[in-house]
Amino acid sequence: MTEQPTHAGRITISVDAMGGDAGPSVVVAGLAKSADKNPDIRFLLHGPEQVLRKLVAKRRVLEGRVVFRDCSGVVTMEDKPSQVVRNGKETSMWSTLEAVRQGEAHGAVSCGNTGALMALSMMRLRKLPGVNRPAIAILWPSRNPQGFNVMLDVGADVRADAKDLLQYALMGASYARNGLALSRPRIGLLNVGTEEHKGRAELKEAHSMIAGFAEQANFDFVGFVEGSDIPGDKADVIVTDGFTGNVAIKTGEGTASLIGDLLRQAFKYSPLSRLASILAITSLNRLKKRIDPRRVNGGVFLGLNGTVVKSHGGADATGVSAAIKLAFTLAQSGFSEKLAARVASTAQLAQDAAQSAPQTDK
Amino acid sequence: MTEQPTHAGRITISVDAMGGDAGPSVVVAGLAKSADKNPDIRFLLHGPEQVLRKLVAKRRVLEGRVVFRDCSGVVTMEDKPSQVVRNGKETSMWSTLEAVRQGEAHGAVSCGNTGALMALSMMRLRKLPGVNRPAIAILWPSRNPQGFNVMLDVGADVRADAKDLLQYALMGASYARNGLALSRPRIGLLNVGTEEHKGRAELKEAHSMIAGFAEQANFDFVGFVEGSDIPGDKADVIVTDGFTGNVAIKTGEGTASLIGDLLRQAFKYSPLSRLASILAITSLNRLKKRIDPRRVNGGVFLGLNGTVVKSHGGADATGVSAAIKLAFTLAQSGFSEKLAARVASTAQLAQDAAQSAPQTDK
Repeated sequence: MTEQPTHAGRITISVDAMGGDAGPSVVVAGLAKSADKNPDIRFLLHGPEQVLRKLVAKRRVLEGRVVFRDCSGVVTMEDKPSQVVRNGKETSMWSTLEAVRQGEAHGAVSCGNTGALMALSMMRLRKLPGVNRPAIAILWPSRNPQGFNVMLDVGADVRADAKDLLQYALMGASYARNGLALSRPRIGLLNVGTEEHKGRAELKEAHSMIAGFAEQANFDFVGFVEGSDIPGDKADVIVTDGFTGNVAIKTGEGTASLIGDLLRQAFKYSPLSRLASILAITSLNRLKKRIDPRRVNGGVFLGLNGTVVKSHGGADATGVSAAIKLAFTLAQSGFSEKLAARVASTAQLAQDAAQSAPQTDK
Repeated sequence: MTEQPTHAGRITISVDAMGGDAGPSVVVAGLAKSADKNPDIRFLLHGPEQVLRKLVAKRRVLEGRVVFRDCSGVVTMEDKPSQVVRNGKETSMWSTLEAVRQGEAHGAVSCGNTGALMALSMMRLRKLPGVNRPAIAILWPSRNPQGFNVMLDVGADVRADAKDLLQYALMGASYARNGLALSRPRIGLLNVGTEEHKGRAELKEAHSMIAGFAEQANFDFVGFVEGSDIPGDKADVIVTDGFTGNVAIKTGEGTASLIGDLLRQAFKYSPLSRLASILAITSLNRLKKRIDPRRVNGGVFLGLNGTVVKSHGGADATGVSAAIKLAFTLAQSGFSEKLAARVASTAQLAQDAAQSAPQTDK
């Protein structure tokens, strides 16, 4: 058994300053928040250097901790991934990933166009050996003690066959171990019912494949779960294809946002309800903090040679800082290398099902 | 143009007393609630007559308005649909549907096993001519003025091709007209993004097919929508396959329920927050009523010869009463006949795309 590498000292995060809805000032504000809380963090910042230098100069906490990479191009939300892959060499997004590829940074963060970021990441960082489709994993508020569940894929790819779903299970388990510190995560496979005869053919096949790997890969497989289990406490990791995952999280976000708006309306209804809202404000803020999407901002791209965190395009400084923290935590734990070893060992196991040597816990 | 039939006088609803989580007493309580509000309603009640007679006798408002159909068998939540179709002849669910088939009732309501109810409905009532896959449509709280959006399919079938999605669009439009009184409903097709190049192949095909029918079938097609639009105001009807729809509503329900529980916890946190909760109670009840799933309890099976409403298995009297009201409203509007005419006319149009005569508004 080889010791897995961890990065105990300083960690450098490569950050794309451009492409977010609010522009580079919010990204730099996020950098400052992270730097303030974390003395071990350094940044490579990509974008128009003149503009970025001015923004960084205003934040004393960033002094001496940011290296600039000047680039003139920006990937917009409207750009097609295929165009960016062909013509995006001068963009801040490209430069951000290149730093990870060259080993100058331990992880990348971008608020930009998800499709373009995934396409560029696949092209520049390449898929891990043995991975067919990379996935995007997010954290979702849940009833579990850790407060959040992992869900993947939420949109890297609209299709997934049984083998892809097995890989998502392995990658999700590894992420839950390193990102949420769960030593033996419980994996659930998303379906329209929990009975084994339900659902699509590829799900039944994936069910038996994932069950077969639970022991070697050191997770518990709880079988099929339903949409209601995504915020539930039956599983820690929810595995699904990117189409279903994307629709599910957007439905959940939309429903939460509708409830929030209706709650505000309800409290504005009468003088008495306005008084109640003043008294209730700390209670409501406590709730808000518990389910605040900014606190868990960051979809992690899994299955690549390197850690890439996609921050929400509309993230504010708190959101950007959360995404950076996630990239830092994963870099520090040596997640990328552990995941690569995990995927390689299970690919080996799949080839040689007779092998029964105990596996290291990654 | 022929006048569509409507049922102006008394309406008889065929109700399955068994199969719900709480047993027949809750169903009878729901009957009483409906009867109290609606002098034009009559019931055929299916289940063990001795038990049901006693329950009905306690409700004076039901006197002379319930006809009993004695049956000994019950479909449980664990029964497989295929078994029920083969061996379910003595069950209350079978009997409930048989009454619609024989023309003795204008619609059916059951709280029982969804899969079994759909399988039996397809076998006994048969699909409408021209319909390939029936669908289950539900109402979902939304930002639209009508307060709810229609979504289908939410689980009748786990697969749907482009033609099925087109039929869902037509059936959903018809339901929105008759169930929500929207004269020209806006239809959206669920996808992972709103750009036309996104998503799976069958969705791109369905996109152009639905767009081609918008004018003849008298609806607006708003194109692709995302999960966040299910509770939004961009469309009135959300069209998707049964797998995605089922996951989406269960994710939304689970998220709403988590927020509700966290809200209760937040208000129990301190003496001040408990005081606030007392003052806020009317505001919170107003919110609760606005998004109360019991108020819109009832998935409607579309595409069959007859109206079948599936009430939630855990419904209380208010929920059962809402499902009965929905069946009543649809029966009164002659929905089933209008939908049949709509599907037939569009099937005709599909065969003869050159035909350009104006269509009646159904």
